[in-house]
Amino acid sequence: MSDSETQLAVQWYPPSFDVRVEAVPMPKVEHPDDAIVKIQLAGLCGSDLHGYRGHEGISDPHTCGHEFVGHVVALGSSFHSGSPASRPELYRTLKLNDKVVSPFSVSCGECRFCRIGFTARCASSLLFGTSALPGAQAQFVRVPHAGGTLVVLPPDSPLSELPDPALLLLADILPTGIFVATQAITHPKVMPLLTGVTWPGPARAFYGNAIDIQDAPAPLTAEDRTLEIAIVGLGPVGMCATVALLDMLANAQAHFNIVAIDPNAARRASLQAVYDALPENARRTSHGTFQIADIDEGKEIVRTRGRGGCHAVLEIVGNPSALTLALSLLAPAGVISSCGVHQGPPLPFIGREMYGKNVSLEFGRCSVRTLFGPAAGLLLRRRDVLAEVVKVVPLADAAHSYARFERGEGGKVAFDPWA
Amino acid sequence: MSDSETQLAVQWYPPSFDVRVEAVPMPKVEHPDDAIVKIQLAGLCGSDLHGYRGHEGISDPHTCGHEFVGHVVALGSSFHSGSPASRPELYRTLKLNDKVVSPFSVSCGECRFCRIGFTARCASSLLFGTSALPGAQAQFVRVPHAGGTLVVLPPDSPLSELPDPALLLLADILPTGIFVATQAITHPKVMPLLTGVTWPGPARAFYGNAIDIQDAPAPLTAEDRTLEIAIVGLGPVGMCATVALLDMLANAQAHFNIVAIDPNAARRASLQAVYDALPENARRTSHGTFQIADIDEGKEIVRTRGRGGCHAVLEIVGNPSALTLALSLLAPAGVISSCGVHQGPPLPFIGREMYGKNVSLEFGRCSVRTLFGPAAGLLLRRRDVLAEVVKVVPLADAAHSYARFERGEGGKVAFDPWA
Repeated sequence: MSDSETQLAVQWYPPSFDVRVEAVPMPKVEHPDDAIVKIQLAGLCGSDLHGYRGHEGISDPHTCGHEFVGHVVALGSSFHSGSPASRPELYRTLKLNDKVVSPFSVSCGECRFCRIGFTARCASSLLFGTSALPGAQAQFVRVPHAGGTLVVLPPDSPLSELPDPALLLLADILPTGIFVATQAITHPKVMPLLTGVTWPGPARAFYGNAIDIQDAPAPLTAEDRTLEIAIVGLGPVGMCATVALLDMLANAQAHFNIVAIDPNAARRASLQAVYDALPENARRTSHGTFQIADIDEGKEIVRTRGRGGCHAVLEIVGNPSALTLALSLLAPAGVISSCGVHQGPPLPFIGREMYGKNVSLEFGRCSVRTLFGPAAGLLLRRRDVLAEVVKVVPLADAAHSYARFERGEGGKVAFDPWA
Repeated sequence: MSDSETQLAVQWYPPSFDVRVEAVPMPKVEHPDDAIVKIQLAGLCGSDLHGYRGHEGISDPHTCGHEFVGHVVALGSSFHSGSPASRPELYRTLKLNDKVVSPFSVSCGECRFCRIGFTARCASSLLFGTSALPGAQAQFVRVPHAGGTLVVLPPDSPLSELPDPALLLLADILPTGIFVATQAITHPKVMPLLTGVTWPGPARAFYGNAIDIQDAPAPLTAEDRTLEIAIVGLGPVGMCATVALLDMLANAQAHFNIVAIDPNAARRASLQAVYDALPENARRTSHGTFQIADIDEGKEIVRTRGRGGCHAVLEIVGNPSALTLALSLLAPAGVISSCGVHQGPPLPFIGREMYGKNVSLEFGRCSVRTLFGPAAGLLLRRRDVLAEVVKVVPLADAAHSYARFERGEGGKVAFDPWA
């Protein structure tokens, strides 16, 4: 590739609602750890809409998109069989033409955040599709720290049987679904319902000698251990979160009542179709209830359960009204797990509410690299329902697809930059 | 006791900064589950100041105070040897003249919140010292749901060796210190540093079959596992939190760097004296550092450590500026554990900060009943330093003591209503 070559890419222009498919310079290796990936498919994600709306506080035109599947077409000089054993294995093994999926943000795999599992908050983290790092809604993309970021799909992997639109779910939204469910049900205030070990659970190992002066607490009843959970926001991530949550609850042998809430009827219908297509061992109707509702119905369902609210609410929207709804659905000592990409507004919470209800709040971005393996396993188990989630359109249709997605129409879309 | 009898009590009057020691009606048994306790000592707590300042949104005069040690002088008809075995044991065993300590809020011991360990959010919870339940800065106090609320100190308990001012710490501030430390270091994002098991730790049990496509993550280094913790607010609760945190970290064999921050020089000096009096196996200087600092010094200490901030910040103040400081000290993927009694102001956080740093927030009131045993064990282990924390003054001095405590002077005070 010469410097003068160009490629097609989706460019965002300020101030808002302006994306154009244009010729831009080809990316090239800029650092020894870089890889260049030829894009097969690039997703359009709900969080792309924050930039689209001009909410991200940025004004520079840039290439959009942070979900992609593709093939390696160029590698920096760090990639060779003699790369130190202390570095991520891909620096020794990644080859041209390898098929790869990328998490939506860069992770070095070599910092303390990566080692502990927080690859989303890697010390060198960059988000694809920002003014800091051109995105993947293009024909080619540069991947910094590629040996710590990319995931290779070898031909003998069971994942190789899956079509690219399904694999694209592994770049962001299926791991994010696992993430938001994980932060809810494994929180120390919710885990007692899964384990039967009362709060504060494992903390007791750190207390030293306690004085035995209490009544033994009465054992938890089956009703005590029935998880009440709400899911707020049923777009593509909400759909993945629902599938992930049901899977985790089944694996945990848990009893549950779930209500999934969205004001958008088309999204409710899409989730209902996915739910109905799940096998019985995934829906687990003998152990739980699952209802899909609009906002008022959802509030009423939670109220009439008489449990004082939900143990956990998954917030998958990313705006103050969703957080306000989540809090209204929450029981005392409950957990709001939020994967919404929140913007400039203050949190819509007053201090007294937080103290008065013993609220726990979990915010942030999914560490996709860490959760890739579990997400891939889930994708294989649920391929029948998940493979149909993503609809492929030509990259040339990007402006139209953004506008439709902004209106909550059309579901999950991926761009084919070669169509 | 006849209805016409009166007792002395600290009464709060609106709008603010007005407490008076006055004769008020004697409390009496109003419900079969009630006990009447004759107060030996009643504490003055930092959270009493919120009401004192008129911040609680209430306007009715009421008796203050929620920490007390005393003796049972009257019992409702629920207390008898034939009380059902399904009810808390104290309904069968509590007797007149038994010495008791009470958690600062009422808990029935019979609801799902109590069974799971969240006694602070009991379905029948009431806070002593509010317009809903007269407080303990008095000669007598009525205890609703007494069989689920009170803790008896039998004569043969090792706790009986302790003086009443030390026992008073068990009503609120020592368990609260354990609580705020527990919510920080046992959070799933912090536990990996204690256990060496990377995030998401125990969640992996719920993921089903994962596909093995990743490099094995590099093992955590000793530095990775060194906990960076800040404590914001060094009043009496902050002092208890410090003692509790050091104890838990020692029991966990953890390595740590702690910075304890307060703008008040007298509070810093008091904590330094407590720290210096701790035995080496509590300070554990071979495994950690402990520094006491004002706000600017504290920020500089955290900055120069070069770790990107603290894994956990304990917020023990209860106002927006303390939360703002806590966030500024926090590393990405960190946890703010707050036991401050927050009031009407909105949380001083914008959504983008929460998402952008993967912040976890823990708010609320300590479940003292659940943590009483560990707190009692800690009190016995640290009696030499903790027994001197509380200074006893006559109840008649209440107005003066409130005014001094409001100015951050004089440390922890307890009222003797019979002096």
